[in-house]
Amino acid sequence: MKIILIGGQGTIGRKVAAALLPKHEVIIAGRNSGDLRVDITSETSIEKMFQELKTADACICTAGTGYYGDFATMRQHHLTTGIQGKLLGQVNLVLIGKDYLSEGGSFTLTSGIAAEHPAKNGTSVAMINGAVNSFVLGASQELKKDQRINVISPGLVADSQERYGALFPGYNLVPMEKVVNAYLLSVEGAVNGKIIKAYA
Amino acid sequence: MKIILIGGQGTIGRKVAAALLPKHEVIIAGRNSGDLRVDITSETSIEKMFQELKTADACICTAGTGYYGDFATMRQHHLTTGIQGKLLGQVNLVLIGKDYLSEGGSFTLTSGIAAEHPAKNGTSVAMINGAVNSFVLGASQELKKDQRINVISPGLVADSQERYGALFPGYNLVPMEKVVNAYLLSVEGAVNGKIIKAYA
Ligand SMILES: NC(=O)c1ccc[n+]([C@@H]2O[C@H](COP(=O)([O-])OP(=O)(O)OC[C@H]3O[C@@H](n4cnc5c(N)ncnc54)[C@H](OP(=O)(O)O)[C@@H]3O)[C@@H](O)[C@H]2O)c1
Ligand SMILES: NC(=O)c1ccc[n+]([C@@H]2O[C@H](COP(=O)([O-])OP(=O)(O)OC[C@H]3O[C@@H](n4cnc5c(N)ncnc54)[C@H](OP(=O)(O)O)[C@@H]3O)[C@@H](O)[C@H]2O)c1
Repeated sequence: MKIILIGGQGTIGRKVAAALLPKHEVIIAGRNSGDLRVDITSETSIEKMFQELKTADACICTAGTGYYGDFATMRQHHLTTGIQGKLLGQVNLVLIGKDYLSEGGSFTLTSGIAAEHPAKNGTSVAMINGAVNSFVLGASQELKKDQRINVISPGLVADSQERYGALFPGYNLVPMEKVVNAYLLSVEGAVNGKIIKAYA
Repeated sequence: MKIILIGGQGTIGRKVAAALLPKHEVIIAGRNSGDLRVDITSETSIEKMFQELKTADACICTAGTGYYGDFATMRQHHLTTGIQGKLLGQVNLVLIGKDYLSEGGSFTLTSGIAAEHPAKNGTSVAMINGAVNSFVLGASQELKKDQRINVISPGLVADSQERYGALFPGYNLVPMEKVVNAYLLSVEGAVNGKIIKAYA
């Protein structure tokens, strides 16, 4: 398969790329890194990326972040990055990318455990993840050409313990292998419209 | 209790107001209707509403809509109304309103069955509803002064059959009484951080 992996230089994306590389052509895209440059906060940039690609058999997104911070002082402007990036960025990858994706191709988006179990200070991230999950439930019914879509909802991966562990007291670390497997299940399997919880 | 009900002239809001009126002071707010004017797409308008109110013991929102339409041609701009209104409008009611809400006060937001069971053409609404649900899970952990927050996720209410029925083939009609009860449970009960599904 020809696979476009947005965020493929990130903590999770790197490991997903490594698992796919032996069997597939993996093209990595990122804002500041990878084979292709894309900024998923921009519809134009996404359209340009797919024009360069021409086609793909799978589109995976492991790019995006959200706001962690004090709820008492949180305001709408704190939510903008997450909405424009992780939420609408991933939504736009689908709305735009579906016309470039091959017959039988698949989308694999990323949400996170916060949708169901928000951490302290993580309400904004919870909101974004819940939105991505429900978007995928809807989109999976609508895609044509036998295209599929799933979303991986990772728990805190072991590789991120140092970077994020302090934000998630009491969250069990998920082995990266389990998270990577979720992406493989979505890309190489037949599942459609699933929220694949890589933490349960 | 002094209760502010945003969207209280709508199909659901009207019935919620009627159920609360015998026991409570209910102030209805809407864009074009009600005792108070508010446009929840604007932070300024929300702030102004709470300044006029000074305080409230419960804040209920039954206002908001989303985009129903062809997925194949859906683009980001179709999502803007839902994001700025039903999603960020309700989020802002909490982020701004919590400082005006009394000790022990409650927020009750509204999402919908689409978060879990999107209808055809309803992917945008699904996304919004999923976001509101997960926001409430997070916010319920963060609110101070013993404040509570819940979200009602109604199915297609019987009263809306004429208006929306054609969009929801195969969806069981939910009696309005069941939906109204969900709001009463949130406002007068002790539940917190619940997604109250008025359809299961
Ligand atoms: N790590 C965890 O434990 C964990 C747990 C739950 C959920 N998640 C979710 O999983 C996803 C990946 O997490 P991660 O820890 O691997 O993230 P990460 O290490 O920060 O990597 C994110 C990647 O996305 C790219 N990116 C960021 N913004 C972008 C944009 N606007 N356009 C294009 N590329 C962009 C970055 O590339 P550039 O630097 O080149 O821009 C980077 O390679 C995120 O959605 C995260 O919320 C992670
Ligand atoms: N009806 C159903 O079967 C059903 C099923 C599932 C979920 N829901 C959800 O339940 C909620 C209420 O539904 P409904 O059928 O009762 O809606 P509705 O009849 O359309 O009423 C909506 C109310 O919200 C007000 N409103 C709209 N936009 C506003 C804004 N920006 N600022 C302030 N007020 C605003 C309107 O007042 P003005 O006209 O004065 O602006 C109106 O009174 C919605 O979120 C809907 O998605 C409904």
